[in-house]
Amino acid sequence: MGADVVWPDAAVCAASFSFDVDGEAAAIAADPATARSMSAMSHQAYGPLVGVARLLDILDHRRVRSTFFVPGATADRYPGVVRDIAAAGHEIAHHGYHHVTPTTLSPAEQAEQLDRGSDTLEQLTGLRPVGYRAPMWDLSWEMPGLLAERGFQYDSSLMDGDVPYALATRSERPGRAPLIEIPIQWALDDWEQYCYLPGVTELGPIQTPEHAVALWRSELDGMRRFGGCWVLTNHPFLSGRPGRAAALDALIAEVLELPDVWVAPLADIADRVRGSVGAPRAVAPIPSSMLRTAPRED
Amino acid sequence: MGADVVWPDAAVCAASFSFDVDGEAAAIAADPATARSMSAMSHQAYGPLVGVARLLDILDHRRVRSTFFVPGATADRYPGVVRDIAAAGHEIAHHGYHHVTPTTLSPAEQAEQLDRGSDTLEQLTGLRPVGYRAPMWDLSWEMPGLLAERGFQYDSSLMDGDVPYALATRSERPGRAPLIEIPIQWALDDWEQYCYLPGVTELGPIQTPEHAVALWRSELDGMRRFGGCWVLTNHPFLSGRPGRAAALDALIAEVLELPDVWVAPLADIADRVRGSVGAPRAVAPIPSSMLRTAPRED
Amino acid sequence: MGADVVWPDAAVCAASFSFDVDGEAAAIAADPATARSMSAMSHQAYGPLVGVARLLDILDHRRVRSTFFVPGATADRYPGVVRDIAAAGHEIAHHGYHHVTPTTLSPAEQAEQLDRGSDTLEQLTGLRPVGYRAPMWDLSWEMPGLLAERGFQYDSSLMDGDVPYALATRSERPGRAPLIEIPIQWALDDWEQYCYLPGVTELGPIQTPEHAVALWRSELDGMRRFGGCWVLTNHPFLSGRPGRAAALDALIAEVLELPDVWVAPLADIADRVRGSVGAPRAVAPIPSSMLRTAPRED
Amino acid sequence: MGADVVWPDAAVCAASFSFDVDGEAAAIAADPATARSMSAMSHQAYGPLVGVARLLDILDHRRVRSTFFVPGATADRYPGVVRDIAAAGHEIAHHGYHHVTPTTLSPAEQAEQLDRGSDTLEQLTGLRPVGYRAPMWDLSWEMPGLLAERGFQYDSSLMDGDVPYALATRSERPGRAPLIEIPIQWALDDWEQYCYLPGVTELGPIQTPEHAVALWRSELDGMRRFGGCWVLTNHPFLSGRPGRAAALDALIAEVLELPDVWVAPLADIADRVRGSVGAPRAVAPIPSSMLRTAPRED
Repeated sequence: MGADVVWPDAAVCAASFSFDVDGEAAAIAADPATARSMSAMSHQAYGPLVGVARLLDILDHRRVRSTFFVPGATADRYPGVVRDIAAAGHEIAHHGYHHVTPTTLSPAEQAEQLDRGSDTLEQLTGLRPVGYRAPMWDLSWEMPGLLAERGFQYDSSLMDGDVPYALATRSERPGRAPLIEIPIQWALDDWEQYCYLPGVTELGPIQTPEHAVALWRSELDGMRRFGGCWVLTNHPFLSGRPGRAAALDALIAEVLELPDVWVAPLADIADRVRGSVGAPRAVAPIPSSMLRTAPRED
Repeated sequence: MGADVVWPDAAVCAASFSFDVDGEAAAIAADPATARSMSAMSHQAYGPLVGVARLLDILDHRRVRSTFFVPGATADRYPGVVRDIAAAGHEIAHHGYHHVTPTTLSPAEQAEQLDRGSDTLEQLTGLRPVGYRAPMWDLSWEMPGLLAERGFQYDSSLMDGDVPYALATRSERPGRAPLIEIPIQWALDDWEQYCYLPGVTELGPIQTPEHAVALWRSELDGMRRFGGCWVLTNHPFLSGRPGRAAALDALIAEVLELPDVWVAPLADIADRVRGSVGAPRAVAPIPSSMLRTAPRED
Repeated sequence: MGADVVWPDAAVCAASFSFDVDGEAAAIAADPATARSMSAMSHQAYGPLVGVARLLDILDHRRVRSTFFVPGATADRYPGVVRDIAAAGHEIAHHGYHHVTPTTLSPAEQAEQLDRGSDTLEQLTGLRPVGYRAPMWDLSWEMPGLLAERGFQYDSSLMDGDVPYALATRSERPGRAPLIEIPIQWALDDWEQYCYLPGVTELGPIQTPEHAVALWRSELDGMRRFGGCWVLTNHPFLSGRPGRAAALDALIAEVLELPDVWVAPLADIADRVRGSVGAPRAVAPIPSSMLRTAPRED
Repeated sequence: MGADVVWPDAAVCAASFSFDVDGEAAAIAADPATARSMSAMSHQAYGPLVGVARLLDILDHRRVRSTFFVPGATADRYPGVVRDIAAAGHEIAHHGYHHVTPTTLSPAEQAEQLDRGSDTLEQLTGLRPVGYRAPMWDLSWEMPGLLAERGFQYDSSLMDGDVPYALATRSERPGRAPLIEIPIQWALDDWEQYCYLPGVTELGPIQTPEHAVALWRSELDGMRRFGGCWVLTNHPFLSGRPGRAAALDALIAEVLELPDVWVAPLADIADRVRGSVGAPRAVAPIPSSMLRTAPRED
């Protein structure tokens, strides 16, 4: 565990069950042609239409509070779903408006997506989101500054640590709490295990829930040994399916039994570490000297 | 289980073993260059030439009635196979004519494919098909209306539910039974487990039958817990192979032993639920506001 | 088992351990840019340089005779390897000259590749090959006729059967033995389990030998139940590696113990079935009516 | 085992745990667009920022000396990491400067990358590297000569052997020790098991550490049977993650217990075999006669 982070109850590891409620927006942003396919859209709609309710039931039964990242466009299409999540006591966090990856947008467009998404969620829930996760987990270099300027408390899109840290931004100001980064990783994501969407993601044979859970458990056990903050991400359009939801339910029960693990939503984790993470970490930009890639002519 | 659906015999879950008899048509539609390859064509021809007969034997031995979706072009090439399936008491359903995905066709072309496929199957079996599944599981937004206009009783191409429902179409009329949607999903398909066809599908290492069955069983167990309608799809050119057919046979036997599962062909499922599914569900079209994806110039 | 095929010793299933000795030729034909990479070439060269000798030792120890398909270009680069295989009593069969897929060649070019490959192998071994397998398992529609004209006894490139059959060609003549087709399938190939060659094949995570053997065994068990001719294909550049060779060795031992399986090289299988397979099967060409795939304009 | 190679302590197999410390450079060289993504860069940065320290702790605890291949650009970005590796007693070896694959560079550009990388590492550690591994394991035909001219003692980028050998170069001179090649293979690499980096590597479902270790162990067992030099490669940005590091730690412990395996860094292996490998092996260039791949016009 990072030297400065101390979890409650003498836990050696924090854990969070987070959800990305992509809906149709994620498929459309990845490939606009999917919007023509009622089947592809229905595959994505399964999340808000069916998956979220099942997952809320499971979380409620296990008494776990969680964080749901919702694109603004999905919130606009399924406002009742967002209200249900909030009413159940979970955190609603920001996942872009159109689920367009920030790295393909100008800074002004990024800011517009950010504000539009925040406005949408605030109108639905009465609360402005304090957490952000980049669509497609593809954070731009400009985004931390944009988040800090707007008072976001944490981002959860980077992959360079086991534990949360304060991330330096271009908008540091005396007296303002630093932006906390809560790292994620692709091995703790259900997308790479379950997602098959022709033309968007064809990563290989769809895996069994047993395989996915074994992978996630191996990393949890590693973090229990070395310390860490285990942030699992499930997508309701994938893990809301009956067999996967049952496996996730069993995993939640298993994690809750571990005496050395502290389970919390991401906002609580950000709150917890804010005072102890030390000075913000500055991530050096990629220098032009690293960009030499011109191939030979022949 | 959807509140309105009640299965026979107090079952909590319905199950159907469906088959997509693609034949050469599926490969040609995906990539016309495959037609030049006698090997690729033979890979697809295995289904009607060998696989169907083996699967019919298994279904007969297990006394299970099933639904076979057959593209018109495949029926024209293998008329005896279609007659054999029908003679064994199974349902023959519509799977396009050329196995071209509807989303790449104009509405007039879709209607032409639909009528041509229905005519072909009716000429062979004496019955006009009442069920439809889109080639490549890629239903267009226009198709439900086209199906309803023609009196189809059900579609089985969408992925936004665990249980069948009535699907609103642009052709609703008083007194006409609604189109029933019987949802499917890619995790209950043998294609993502077994299919390797260079240039068309190279999804990764071909999986063992044991892996495929474990995946399908996990979803069945989930549906037995949460309620659902488990629609498995096998392709005779894939699952007609000896080792896979043996594994499917064992799975069928296993499912038949479950007291809480009702096994039926899809037409029977559509009949069963028609009276209890309630008002047709309208699927909102994708609004233009969700289509913003123009990347920045740079 | 096909009604007309009877295996020796009351076996219900025939089995053959065949090898495709691709060498560098397969990579170069798939992507000429690989020739620039000494690493990629060395990956392919492992087969003739190391793998073949190890596999010959195993076959010798198990007293199994096998069939090795060798591209002419590979034979020209490694003549001693071809002589070693022949000296060990195995069949040397034809695998193209440059390992170019026939479907990308004109009939004249196919004939040239065929004759050049036969000449090369004959010069090295004194025997003209009687068996053929298309490079990349991609047989052209013209090739069966070309093979029959040249007196080939069998082809092993199609996938539309469980048992060998006589294949009708455009060169049928009274009194001449028909061309026997000995079917293969991708699930009985080590390529889809083990091959990773950037830019050529990136099929997913490299599988364990345990996984590959489990897949192959499941199909063998299926064929022992339903009848069949189990033709396994291994590539020395892949399965010549120590861990895979050890697993293949164990599988060979296991198969040899099965009382209901007859193990033989492909030429022996062709000989065995020639008299009992009945009239040649004519494979209908793909009619132009199956080729409608023009997408809509929009 | 190669007839001429004898390992210390009557071992039948040598083993080396090597590491490629790619960092951001590997992603940027594969696709310069990744440099725009702070997330993608953070995924790569995990290696030097977190993974290396964890792996060094494990190696120290197990008392294993290893070889770390570091691109010059990564060393320039993380000089302290390189010094830490060297201070822990491990070998620092050459992995290009920009991690650009040599096969895309002219000979002059290759030489420039080579010298710049050597200068960088020498400035940091005081030692000029004696070992080289090509970025992306994609050695050019010119590189062995360039390495020999500069006095490198070994290369570890080819895949055509189970044991080290002397590699003939265009720079052979009487009295100068030959360049030793220590072969690698993709099945002994964590990249194909764990790496997912959108737009760069999407090889399929991320595997469990259990799967990766089972694959690596199967090859080790094969080499213990047939003889060999087992060179495992892990990337700190992948295998530095807690669950994978724990699995690697357990594997190291397991290997150290094997009485027939000799564990050493690559430079020690090169030293050991130099006197016994015999005359340099000349790898024949690919003749133009193997390059016929022009497809037919049609």
